[in-house]
Amino acid sequence: MKKGELLYRGKAKSVYRTDVPQELVVEFRDDITAFDGGKKANLAEKGMLNARVSAFFFTLLEKAKIRTHYLGMIDPATMRVRTLTMIPLEVIVRNVAAGSLVKRYPFREGQPLDPPILVIDYKDDARHDPMINDEIILALGLVTAAELQEIKQKALSVNRVLGDHLQGKGITLVDFKLEFGKDGLGNVTVGDEISMDSMRLWDARSGQSMDKDVYRFDKGDVMEAYRRVAERITGNAGGRSR
Amino acid sequence: MKKGELLYRGKAKSVYRTDVPQELVVEFRDDITAFDGGKKANLAEKGMLNARVSAFFFTLLEKAKIRTHYLGMIDPATMRVRTLTMIPLEVIVRNVAAGSLVKRYPFREGQPLDPPILVIDYKDDARHDPMINDEIILALGLVTAAELQEIKQKALSVNRVLGDHLQGKGITLVDFKLEFGKDGLGNVTVGDEISMDSMRLWDARSGQSMDKDVYRFDKGDVMEAYRRVAERITGNAGGRSR
Repeated sequence: MKKGELLYRGKAKSVYRTDVPQELVVEFRDDITAFDGGKKANLAEKGMLNARVSAFFFTLLEKAKIRTHYLGMIDPATMRVRTLTMIPLEVIVRNVAAGSLVKRYPFREGQPLDPPILVIDYKDDARHDPMINDEIILALGLVTAAELQEIKQKALSVNRVLGDHLQGKGITLVDFKLEFGKDGLGNVTVGDEISMDSMRLWDARSGQSMDKDVYRFDKGDVMEAYRRVAERITGNAGGRSR
Repeated sequence: MKKGELLYRGKAKSVYRTDVPQELVVEFRDDITAFDGGKKANLAEKGMLNARVSAFFFTLLEKAKIRTHYLGMIDPATMRVRTLTMIPLEVIVRNVAAGSLVKRYPFREGQPLDPPILVIDYKDDARHDPMINDEIILALGLVTAAELQEIKQKALSVNRVLGDHLQGKGITLVDFKLEFGKDGLGNVTVGDEISMDSMRLWDARSGQSMDKDVYRFDKGDVMEAYRRVAERITGNAGGRSR
């Protein structure tokens, strides 16, 4: 399998064609951005750590019979994935009130949400990823009603699998974002990444942030936090140099 | 029934207590605002016209067995209403894509929406009335799941009643906003107003705006447009001076 032309360059990942039509290659770059691209940096080893955690979670989901695009790693920051037609929705699952939820609505930061809250944003950089609802999703023809239900069910299943694993590691899964796509057969499949960039993780004991909020709000050494949480999640203390 | 103390002063209406606990008085003022209060004016007779159209539509809804807060008029700009505990939601029904829907999502202005799209905003000036979804509404405990379903059903019923009437007058009901409250017995009841300030109305033939968009976007003489559409809707050509 050979890496081909660049298909898409996102804020933190680049996607390449390969010589196999059903397979793509995702490069997790060291770029980090926040606030709709308003804050940017490049942090050595960040891509590799996010790739490692994503690969770990995708494997965990596959074991739980939840279909993902993950096929394997080429090098520590480069992932082989199934080719998907991406659905332009960001599906956010929230177990604890934080971030934009607290800013927009009268929740208290840290308030537990049971059942979890699902919020869906329309993925469109130029429109700043506005929140969307079921009726608008269907009116735009982004998915069918049955696919939308499947997406919501899968998001909640992913939440249970990730939440259980993280709880066992002393980490609270506050919220996270998923993106879905459809493979050649139309199977709704978890795509994109599941990493410190796309999750909000708090140390269950101290409440300390262990995710991109460390970068967003200058809460400390970002890479130190990413390295520590990746190690806790995956049980792998390896760095590029080891 | 005697008008008592001011209970609430909104952007275009003032609500007063009365000596009857189950009744309030709503004064439709001549104030008009747009863009989250960023644009303001005072237009003589505007309150009276909105009050007349609201009274007309509330009466139409009551005939269709949809409960509203409307009890009658005291003078042309002052309405007697049932006391409601207001639910802080703005329920927007859209039959044709326009306004924020077109700005936020890839709809074409004027694109018909069938079935109509329901969008719900959380009514909170300080938070700029953010869009909300079912899960967040329930997590905030704003209403029960059954009440939320009832609100949605009622909004669609109101849409049918208003849309049919307006169609008969050569007017397209593009979209409109409803607010609901609960009376002393917990009945979900249509409150607030249904007027040129809360609806988007287009002449069915010319497509011309006949609502607050005339003010928002300086499309012409606001009061001339309000007078003309009020007359077409209610079949009443009367002004204050007649």
